[in-house]
Amino acid sequence: MIDTLIHNGLIVTVDDAFTLLAGGAVAVRNGRIEKVWVPVAGDALPAARETIDAAGAVVMPGLVNAHTHLPMSLFRGLADDMGLHQWLQEHIMPAEARHITPASVALGAKLSCAEMVLGGTTTCGDGYFLVDHFAPAVAQMGMRAVLGQGIIDFPAPGVPDPAQNVAVARDVVARWMGRAALVRPSIFCHAPYTCSARTLQAGKAAAREMGVLFQIHVAETLEERDQAVREHGCTPIRYLERLGLLDDHTLLVHAVWVDAQEVAIIARSGAHVVHCPESNMKLAAGVAPVPDYRAAGIAVGLGTDGCASNNDLDLWGEMDSAAKLHKVHRGDPTVLDAVAVVRMATIQGARALGLEQLVGSLAPGKRADLIILKVDQPHLTPLYHPASHLVYTARAGDVNHVMVDGQWLVRDRQLLTVDLNDLMDRVNRLARTIANP
Amino acid sequence: MIDTLIHNGLIVTVDDAFTLLAGGAVAVRNGRIEKVWVPVAGDALPAARETIDAAGAVVMPGLVNAHTHLPMSLFRGLADDMGLHQWLQEHIMPAEARHITPASVALGAKLSCAEMVLGGTTTCGDGYFLVDHFAPAVAQMGMRAVLGQGIIDFPAPGVPDPAQNVAVARDVVARWMGRAALVRPSIFCHAPYTCSARTLQAGKAAAREMGVLFQIHVAETLEERDQAVREHGCTPIRYLERLGLLDDHTLLVHAVWVDAQEVAIIARSGAHVVHCPESNMKLAAGVAPVPDYRAAGIAVGLGTDGCASNNDLDLWGEMDSAAKLHKVHRGDPTVLDAVAVVRMATIQGARALGLEQLVGSLAPGKRADLIILKVDQPHLTPLYHPASHLVYTARAGDVNHVMVDGQWLVRDRQLLTVDLNDLMDRVNRLARTIANP
Repeated sequence: MIDTLIHNGLIVTVDDAFTLLAGGAVAVRNGRIEKVWVPVAGDALPAARETIDAAGAVVMPGLVNAHTHLPMSLFRGLADDMGLHQWLQEHIMPAEARHITPASVALGAKLSCAEMVLGGTTTCGDGYFLVDHFAPAVAQMGMRAVLGQGIIDFPAPGVPDPAQNVAVARDVVARWMGRAALVRPSIFCHAPYTCSARTLQAGKAAAREMGVLFQIHVAETLEERDQAVREHGCTPIRYLERLGLLDDHTLLVHAVWVDAQEVAIIARSGAHVVHCPESNMKLAAGVAPVPDYRAAGIAVGLGTDGCASNNDLDLWGEMDSAAKLHKVHRGDPTVLDAVAVVRMATIQGARALGLEQLVGSLAPGKRADLIILKVDQPHLTPLYHPASHLVYTARAGDVNHVMVDGQWLVRDRQLLTVDLNDLMDRVNRLARTIANP
Repeated sequence: MIDTLIHNGLIVTVDDAFTLLAGGAVAVRNGRIEKVWVPVAGDALPAARETIDAAGAVVMPGLVNAHTHLPMSLFRGLADDMGLHQWLQEHIMPAEARHITPASVALGAKLSCAEMVLGGTTTCGDGYFLVDHFAPAVAQMGMRAVLGQGIIDFPAPGVPDPAQNVAVARDVVARWMGRAALVRPSIFCHAPYTCSARTLQAGKAAAREMGVLFQIHVAETLEERDQAVREHGCTPIRYLERLGLLDDHTLLVHAVWVDAQEVAIIARSGAHVVHCPESNMKLAAGVAPVPDYRAAGIAVGLGTDGCASNNDLDLWGEMDSAAKLHKVHRGDPTVLDAVAVVRMATIQGARALGLEQLVGSLAPGKRADLIILKVDQPHLTPLYHPASHLVYTARAGDVNHVMVDGQWLVRDRQLLTVDLNDLMDRVNRLARTIANP
């Protein structure tokens, strides 16, 4: 007996051949995808507890937002249109110092999950502090997540003594190993310029020993690159290589200022990249060499970065921006075509987070993380090429139904896992104190 | 007696001071904005036929999409991710030759208006052929529009003999002068490289005599600029100046490859610019010097360009892209701040189209073109700075109610002026023949 049968849809499998199945069906049992096929006309459909008619809809894998800072949705739009230094020093860090607490990170994380799930993002890769205090909220929201406990050589929320940063992260990872079905712990070293070589190596050693993903912001700005050359005699990627941090469990976030030789270094190491085009644009960081990463066979996921810089967690906008940014930057309208970008937002992001065997495409045996988009709408009419519509035209509000691990989180655009008005009321009360310190 | 009273909203007036009125009200009578104010607590509200409680919502001027090709929504996503020449010669022009007819342009225009109005765009500036055949559809949809009849020195839909192109345009303008309350005719010369000097001057002369807007694509690509230098001995903007085409009734579309001296030429002439960032990105045309235009006092509106290149008519995405593109392009996160971009999408677009006295801001005496956005949603929570949210976070689907000229076109996200399912069915039937020629 099937648990959920979805039929009559346009199935975008995101398999290796990017197979599209018009009038296709997906069967889900015990949280797994059992079968993906086109039923023969006249044949009886398998018996199912629940049947969804997806006429006028696209069925596809849930999106993977490979870089977030979940609690920072509390600071969404607090400060914009200013230099990174002023933004961070005068606005974000003071707000974090005052308002990031065990209670507030859970609240912010819930808000972020609500936004993401409603928009069809079913998995996120996150890096922040106080993971112990918001991982339960993420689990409760039903999202799949890789949560990196932050390591930085400064006092941080929950880690007043930086000498303890790696030890704290080890404890967090140990506590969350296997504890929640959908939430995996990870180690997140903030950046090569905020962590010493010793800290970076200890962080990576901990990640290696415990078998978890090692994440790091790297080569985000030109200033960072030039500082690395001054201080370490080489660029940031070469520095990480020298420290032995690059392998197939390392996720490089941003990776904007990376030269051709470094692209080869990353490819050889098996490390993955997260591209955050809108954050890089808004903060004027630069344009990452994404077409080169892809040509070198590096898995490149897409991320929104935190809400405080972007200012949303909308992977549809991120896909659109990625596809267009690289075209104008390279002066070539053929780079990063729509299919490539859909892959980045799904299977490539899953690969970058080490979840490729579980999610990122609709294939028998994978966990049932899928979304159903309503495409019989004016802005999606007519429909010649589904990938084009997904990248250039579809929006978060077009997502009607969202399933993670076989459970519905959203039905008919309504979030089932939280009282949204209560959540927003609590955020708004806190935001009033943030706005008026 | 007021016709419509909207109260309890966060009013984004887009006046010169960008005044925000929390708990504000707007009164509409006879299609005009009568009053915009913050009612004193305890005072009775004026009597009104209809009262809208805008709690949890932003009330703002309808958006102005200053450059579209309405019928081309029929080709939305037909061909993507290829060079301009291949796209135009192998896909768009053959499709136009086969499928652009008096009946199909009306259908495509209705689809475009449906998309725009549902997303809060209340005015558009358009350029295409067969205006006689789709202007009635635009009027029926209730949108405000400036419709430019196309002039090009090749056989075109409805103008088989290019020698008649200006005469046909004159006739179209004459027929539509004062005919529909919300639809104004205009002259649209396609480009300096597709119209002879004589055609351009005759087109501008016709526009001058009849007192209508003269629109032209110009300096879109580097190839166009270099060709102009080869053929005319000067760059496209200088060429238009030499031909006497620049004045305050001229709208320059794209204006990407424009040098500092040309910016001064445009500013001195009083001509206006439409910036189409997403079209320029997707076709890899380049990045227009928008911050320089604004610094020189030139009115810069925002446009989506036609659906065949963009692939939607979503001015929210266009605002987001504009704000971010120029930051990364200039390496400066302070350029084009959110308030500037909201102005471009409203009052500056209205100015560019010659409609500034009528629309583009919420002020007593202006026509009542306004939209109400639902902001009590996770992706818009919390709300510190409204302009930031409008540019970086809000989406077309957040628009709940849309009024043009005092008439509701959208209530609770439902379009009132057309049977949407019937319209989409008709488009889809035509699209099947377009996809399988």
